[in-house]
Amino acid sequence: MTRLPAGFKASGIACGLKKKGPDLALWLCDRTATAAALFTTNRFRAAPVCLSAAHLIRTGGRARAIVINSGCANAATGRRGLAAARRTAFEVARQAGVAPETVLLASTGVIGEHLPVARLVAGLPAAIAGLGAGGLERASRAIMTTDTRPKTAEASFRWRGRTVRIAGCAKGAGMVHPRMATMLAVLLTDAAISPGLLRRALGEASRHSFESISIDGDTSTNDSVFLLASGASGVRIRKKEGSWARFVHSLGLVAGSLARQIVADGEGARRTLEIEVTGARDRDLADRVARAIACSPLVRTALAGGDANWGRILAAAGAAGVPFDPAGVSVSIGGVTVARRGAAVRYDRRRVDRLFRRPGVKVRVGLGRSAGRARMLTCDLTSGYVRINADYRS
Amino acid sequence: MTRLPAGFKASGIACGLKKKGPDLALWLCDRTATAAALFTTNRFRAAPVCLSAAHLIRTGGRARAIVINSGCANAATGRRGLAAARRTAFEVARQAGVAPETVLLASTGVIGEHLPVARLVAGLPAAIAGLGAGGLERASRAIMTTDTRPKTAEASFRWRGRTVRIAGCAKGAGMVHPRMATMLAVLLTDAAISPGLLRRALGEASRHSFESISIDGDTSTNDSVFLLASGASGVRIRKKEGSWARFVHSLGLVAGSLARQIVADGEGARRTLEIEVTGARDRDLADRVARAIACSPLVRTALAGGDANWGRILAAAGAAGVPFDPAGVSVSIGGVTVARRGAAVRYDRRRVDRLFRRPGVKVRVGLGRSAGRARMLTCDLTSGYVRINADYRS
Repeated sequence: MTRLPAGFKASGIACGLKKKGPDLALWLCDRTATAAALFTTNRFRAAPVCLSAAHLIRTGGRARAIVINSGCANAATGRRGLAAARRTAFEVARQAGVAPETVLLASTGVIGEHLPVARLVAGLPAAIAGLGAGGLERASRAIMTTDTRPKTAEASFRWRGRTVRIAGCAKGAGMVHPRMATMLAVLLTDAAISPGLLRRALGEASRHSFESISIDGDTSTNDSVFLLASGASGVRIRKKEGSWARFVHSLGLVAGSLARQIVADGEGARRTLEIEVTGARDRDLADRVARAIACSPLVRTALAGGDANWGRILAAAGAAGVPFDPAGVSVSIGGVTVARRGAAVRYDRRRVDRLFRRPGVKVRVGLGRSAGRARMLTCDLTSGYVRINADYRS
Repeated sequence: MTRLPAGFKASGIACGLKKKGPDLALWLCDRTATAAALFTTNRFRAAPVCLSAAHLIRTGGRARAIVINSGCANAATGRRGLAAARRTAFEVARQAGVAPETVLLASTGVIGEHLPVARLVAGLPAAIAGLGAGGLERASRAIMTTDTRPKTAEASFRWRGRTVRIAGCAKGAGMVHPRMATMLAVLLTDAAISPGLLRRALGEASRHSFESISIDGDTSTNDSVFLLASGASGVRIRKKEGSWARFVHSLGLVAGSLARQIVADGEGARRTLEIEVTGARDRDLADRVARAIACSPLVRTALAGGDANWGRILAAAGAAGVPFDPAGVSVSIGGVTVARRGAAVRYDRRRVDRLFRRPGVKVRVGLGRSAGRARMLTCDLTSGYVRINADYRS
């Protein structure tokens, strides 16, 4: 069981926003934590995203509590939605005895429906009563929508005789294609760190985790990652010390684990596909090619069928709008080269199909001799995805 | 039955490239026709695309024959693929008694497998023997892959006592997201027209037809549209006459009909979705938003479920990377407004869900008050699509 870092408590309860199951999660820090967050770049930012961003600006990167509900995204809900988010923050603050602007919020569920805020507020006393050092798993269950399992991860490192702990949880499943932003994730640490450094650490850790995954190419209106640092470990992270590198590395481990868990539990997913693109002119161009492959329905249905139809990988790369010489392109699947200089080579098709049926498949696309590289993680597109999303509201 | 315009003959036969069914189509003009074409912008252009483009440059826009095979895309096949395409053109030319550079080619099927060119060449005598004025439907069947039905269309107009006819056929089904290019389509007319004007007419007609559709967001390596004009009607199309407007209009009718047929017969499709985006700053920005909505798996699975979950439409628009004010956005489904000023409005959900279950659904997204508008046509994403594409090669 994933433990919370020192200084934090969490809980997860049911308040009736979903037909069944827990739907309200709360995290509380026993002191003012430094806080950083990344939010969706979708033009339609949900009300809790707008309010959380405003709170972080007002506090200069400090927070005491995070409250997340599932069952309703509170997005495309106009002024009434913003009032519902404000009311939620106000009630959490009042009942937990903290300042309203130190409350961060997130919501997940159907877009365009109003949040039943009275029901949420009525659930807060139980959420506060339930707060405990062992509450992370309950909280991680309360933020699930079509996720089939909760996602938590932890890491720790020693620094000058003391232990720094980092723990987190996340939800994913569908509408997952975070861009300059990410999914719902809560990361907590007992390190002591300034708001500026915390923001930077979160940016570095997210780039290769939450920002390098896609389930369906759809970027949500509600993506949010929060990172709170209580300082309760007594270890201060400073930029010019080894503590910074260790902190960023450990944070990357937690974020990376959560990101992989999100993809592995993508709606209807049975396999993951890791796409590594190398040899592009720069990282951005490599990233565009990797994203084009990761978002290709034809690549993802081939993965579902366990059919290593690499021509689709090549076609998706070619349609990415990125300049490269087709005659310099190579493709390998699970380490076996299937195309070189832009054309088919002889290979053992049965062996490659077998590699393509593993739970985790790796594809490498070499575009040329330059140094730009990027990696994306996605999952297969199955009938299960279609079924889940054709029936989601009904 | 769609008739060929004067001057053309066509045929479709089986030469064994596919496990069963016709797989080789041939069109022949009884004189040198003016010719125009649009090809895929995918970086991996198939061998027949490269050769056809070269032929059109060499002839300055003239052609006598078009040969298309299904069962193999002849893409990502390197020099051997190009040699196979050259051999095909050479054999068609020799057996039909025309010059090799007046033969245009296209292929469709699996990418990265070599074309069994001997089998194709062995089928040519039957294809030539089968040529007839009533052969368009047989040809249109021979270019099908996962298409469930052949697609043909025709239009005609009168000019100074004479009739100009335009007829065409196309194939689609999967890997359909033509960009500055299009699907496999053959358009024929008996108008007399210069190569330059013919190119321009094809560009105008394709923009609102083949280039405004998407099935799965995947742009093929083999997209090609050919337009041949025999001149056999005796009507010359001139830019500064009413004949030009009538010709472009009629050509647009044929191209538009074929494009709609392609989307309606998209792999696994049961419904089409027409997305109209208005009020963007310019046409390109409107087009990007329309494409983002048309490519959203969540929008397309909602369509499959007949669930008018418009929040997904709004989220897809917001993630298109296009600047607009969310508070100025409206969404309507089948004429019923469901969101205004970026937020939910009251509406009859049962009625809107009913509208969303029609075979053809219309969605309109208003982004603001500017004049930029665009339209995209797509289809629903069903379990059928996943099944077809998970099993395609096996």
